[in-house]
Amino acid sequence: MGFLELINKRQSVRKYTNKPVDKEKLLRCIEAARLSPSASNSQPWKFIVIDEPGLKDKVARETFSTLVNFNKFTLESPVLIAITLEKPPVLNRIGGRLKKRSWKLMDLGMAAEHFCLQAEEEGLGTCMIGWYNEKAIKKLLKIPKEKDLALLISVGYAPEDYKLRTKVRKPIGEMSKFNQY
Amino acid sequence: MGFLELINKRQSVRKYTNKPVDKEKLLRCIEAARLSPSASNSQPWKFIVIDEPGLKDKVARETFSTLVNFNKFTLESPVLIAITLEKPPVLNRIGGRLKKRSWKLMDLGMAAEHFCLQAEEEGLGTCMIGWYNEKAIKKLLKIPKEKDLALLISVGYAPEDYKLRTKVRKPIGEMSKFNQY
Repeated sequence: MGFLELINKRQSVRKYTNKPVDKEKLLRCIEAARLSPSASNSQPWKFIVIDEPGLKDKVARETFSTLVNFNKFTLESPVLIAITLEKPPVLNRIGGRLKKRSWKLMDLGMAAEHFCLQAEEEGLGTCMIGWYNEKAIKKLLKIPKEKDLALLISVGYAPEDYKLRTKVRKPIGEMSKFNQY
Repeated sequence: MGFLELINKRQSVRKYTNKPVDKEKLLRCIEAARLSPSASNSQPWKFIVIDEPGLKDKVARETFSTLVNFNKFTLESPVLIAITLEKPPVLNRIGGRLKKRSWKLMDLGMAAEHFCLQAEEEGLGTCMIGWYNEKAIKKLLKIPKEKDLALLISVGYAPEDYKLRTKVRKPIGEMSKFNQY
């Protein structure tokens, strides 16, 4: 499968069967994230795989509320991934501060996407989740207070009849230009 | 080529031949970036392809100084990409502010990595560049003052004898855990 085909197939999966996910598949997804590039190779991330059913359900329940209920599908997905932002080395931080830039969130995004693309190659569906009760989940996973829980990802098998949606994106002439903004 | 093979082959290329880059290849890299996921599909990025040689050289000269000279290879690469951070829709910004999170930099990182992975598949070398004179480059590319120039990428062909380096990364047991931080 070519890369363009892979990224066309990857989509947010918000419905899951109860088929369990092989650990070997998960480890290959983690490996893909591990190999991701980062500013000065700082690798400012930690991936926590939540596959213990009781704990997974508890974490899932912290991704929605009565008001914000679009993440309820996390109760169906057999696995959740929590990604924490780790501090880059000092020199990197100084560089970023001098230039008023933060590379670490870009780096974390790349690693998360590596994970999701490898999952797609393994036949697994994923969804990145940005809405959750950070404090509660940090407590459940024993994440130190000073760490930032940056992103969650649900992982599992989409139902067989789950449709591949056509991607809606800005036209190429709008999101890209030649030699001038 | 499998995804793990592709990401193993992708590396920062800091030496380029003068072989020009086909526009079709560049457009497929842009297409890969265009299809990248983003929070609420906000697509907070614009890719500017700099392939006009005189302009490219001027931009390249703003990626290094007497003090910071590790980006001089940008003078060799026939193409540079400038990526600006575009404002996500209002609802997305409110959500991010409520949760004190910024998804747009993660999104931009994913799109940049999509570009670089498609380039690798096209046989092109890339390097992400975080050090540059933002003000000067924005002027050269007529980027509006209020926009953020978030990242540059060099694009071109690595010399034939350019070696694939073994990736140095934290061990998998250090960058990932099961069910607990």
